[in-house]
Amino acid sequence: MNPEPTKIVQELKPYVPGEQPRDMKYIKLNTNENPYPPAPGVFEAVKTAGLDRMRLYPDPLCKKLRGILSQKHGVETDRIFVGNGSDEVLRLLFQAYLSPGEILAITDPTYSLYPVLAATFGAGIESVPLEEEGQLPQIPDPSRFRVMVIASPNPPLGAVYSEEELEVLIKAAPSTLFIIDEAYVDFAESDCMDLSKRHENVAVCRTFSKSYSLAGIRVGYAVGCRGIIENLYKIKDSYNVNYLSQVAACAAVKAEEYYRQTASRIREDREFLAGELREMGLRVYPSQGNFIFAEGEDGRKIYEGLKAAGILVRYFDLPRLRRGVRITIGTRKEIEELLKALAGL
Amino acid sequence: MNPEPTKIVQELKPYVPGEQPRDMKYIKLNTNENPYPPAPGVFEAVKTAGLDRMRLYPDPLCKKLRGILSQKHGVETDRIFVGNGSDEVLRLLFQAYLSPGEILAITDPTYSLYPVLAATFGAGIESVPLEEEGQLPQIPDPSRFRVMVIASPNPPLGAVYSEEELEVLIKAAPSTLFIIDEAYVDFAESDCMDLSKRHENVAVCRTFSKSYSLAGIRVGYAVGCRGIIENLYKIKDSYNVNYLSQVAACAAVKAEEYYRQTASRIREDREFLAGELREMGLRVYPSQGNFIFAEGEDGRKIYEGLKAAGILVRYFDLPRLRRGVRITIGTRKEIEELLKALAGL
Repeated sequence: MNPEPTKIVQELKPYVPGEQPRDMKYIKLNTNENPYPPAPGVFEAVKTAGLDRMRLYPDPLCKKLRGILSQKHGVETDRIFVGNGSDEVLRLLFQAYLSPGEILAITDPTYSLYPVLAATFGAGIESVPLEEEGQLPQIPDPSRFRVMVIASPNPPLGAVYSEEELEVLIKAAPSTLFIIDEAYVDFAESDCMDLSKRHENVAVCRTFSKSYSLAGIRVGYAVGCRGIIENLYKIKDSYNVNYLSQVAACAAVKAEEYYRQTASRIREDREFLAGELREMGLRVYPSQGNFIFAEGEDGRKIYEGLKAAGILVRYFDLPRLRRGVRITIGTRKEIEELLKALAGL
Repeated sequence: MNPEPTKIVQELKPYVPGEQPRDMKYIKLNTNENPYPPAPGVFEAVKTAGLDRMRLYPDPLCKKLRGILSQKHGVETDRIFVGNGSDEVLRLLFQAYLSPGEILAITDPTYSLYPVLAATFGAGIESVPLEEEGQLPQIPDPSRFRVMVIASPNPPLGAVYSEEELEVLIKAAPSTLFIIDEAYVDFAESDCMDLSKRHENVAVCRTFSKSYSLAGIRVGYAVGCRGIIENLYKIKDSYNVNYLSQVAACAAVKAEEYYRQTASRIREDREFLAGELREMGLRVYPSQGNFIFAEGEDGRKIYEGLKAAGILVRYFDLPRLRRGVRITIGTRKEIEELLKALAGL
């Protein structure tokens, strides 16, 4: 006899991550990974990590990494939480602040993981439709939301929101927690980290998966007031970030110059790709991420045509997104292959 | 203004892991780590891991590792769940099967993380007092428990339970989920993995943190029926186990011979230490883990005296445990230092 799981688990629809094929050599432009390898210092750090430290439990509080991040952002260490990818950081924020039936507000469209994560805690979802090019609309009464999560840049379209417009919301709802997910911020022209310093109802999330080229090691973090950070530490798994990932992330933050260069290459190639796609008659949304959303008539056809040509992009079968595909900015060579394949469809 | 966390989080008392001092060279016999380094093949695998794979997301389903574990245990791959340490595996089992107010049964004493984890989901706890030497008592009506977790060997005393006695319980409560935590099983004379094959209400948990000397990489797993495993996959973080840890764990399972030898050394040294402590007049519980519980009159005094001598052991300030300390089995040299320090107290 199978023991019954909780009602919530019985009703859950799990998140479906982008395809991660292992069997064939695709050009992988579907999960917003960075096409450039991590900084040489990161390899070096892992290889010389004192590997017999692997037998010991890792630092449960990631003190060294938090110290380095504290310098990078100019905030105290106890205002930083480090997690097993920003997946964990987001989940813990939802778990700490959403009781069953309370409302999480998301934008439509946005990162499709948010509603899935919130559902595991029985929260209700309210979608705020974005304007034509992905801008935030007026939101009349944000204080009815327990938590609101806003990605900036916001996938899959890629719009960025200014400190000023977010601050209006944040001030209008001081007991609502605002999570600003800046996973893609290093490809953008501005960021909102300062909001986490000025307001006690803001947590800004960052990740090592995108600009740092370290999706494989699973490190993300949140910056917020002490109260928020303490609550995350209260409910996380005891040793949530493994030793080698702590080593790799520390080395990555120290290699800022390398990463500035790869991010700037990606920004240039994004503008190049956007221009070419527009020439081909596609609609391209203004994006500040390492991806762009390109619209034709039938996104599924584009997706399938490209897949047949050995190129993976991301298609979302949702009313507002169905005409286009999200394309990760790869290397210039990958972009040229993509353009060739698109021209042949 | 600080947004309010959920009622559950407001009332939580977080788990306190054993001390992990970074500042001074202690002999560390307090967190049941393995004193021997991981197998040479594990180092090799990490160093040659194709480190630029770090830029890509890891396999979200750990297919390769589950394939290897499936061979090791003779169960199908889809009956194995791999997590970010058995901490994550246990948390997900609790989250999937315990609704607020439902009862988790634990033994008293046992691993102190269980009630902390269950409390994060609002579950109630019922403690079943163990017999004199840590044996399981008769449990009249186990079907009133939603979930029961039993460690075998069971820390901090170290008793092991037989398949036969556990099967009586499991059959008496077919809609209760029984979690058998075999973190320490490779130091014991028998295991209960077969129960997960014969019963749909059993999950057996294992870890790479103890016998595999890999506490730093955070990999644990559960074996159970498909229904249980599917529920865990439904609620886990999308990419819960990082790439380097998957590589290290695969290499570890292939180095069984090395690990058989280190485990057998630890078993011998456990018996040596137990004998010496008994000679010194301490009560030592029969343990099949890589630790023993030694009782005098005042555990805190023993703990403090040893700490002053540069040796860390674990003291639990609980009625039943307060007279003793839990000592991890270190190398023979560490054990001799411990005995010398104890003689001097």
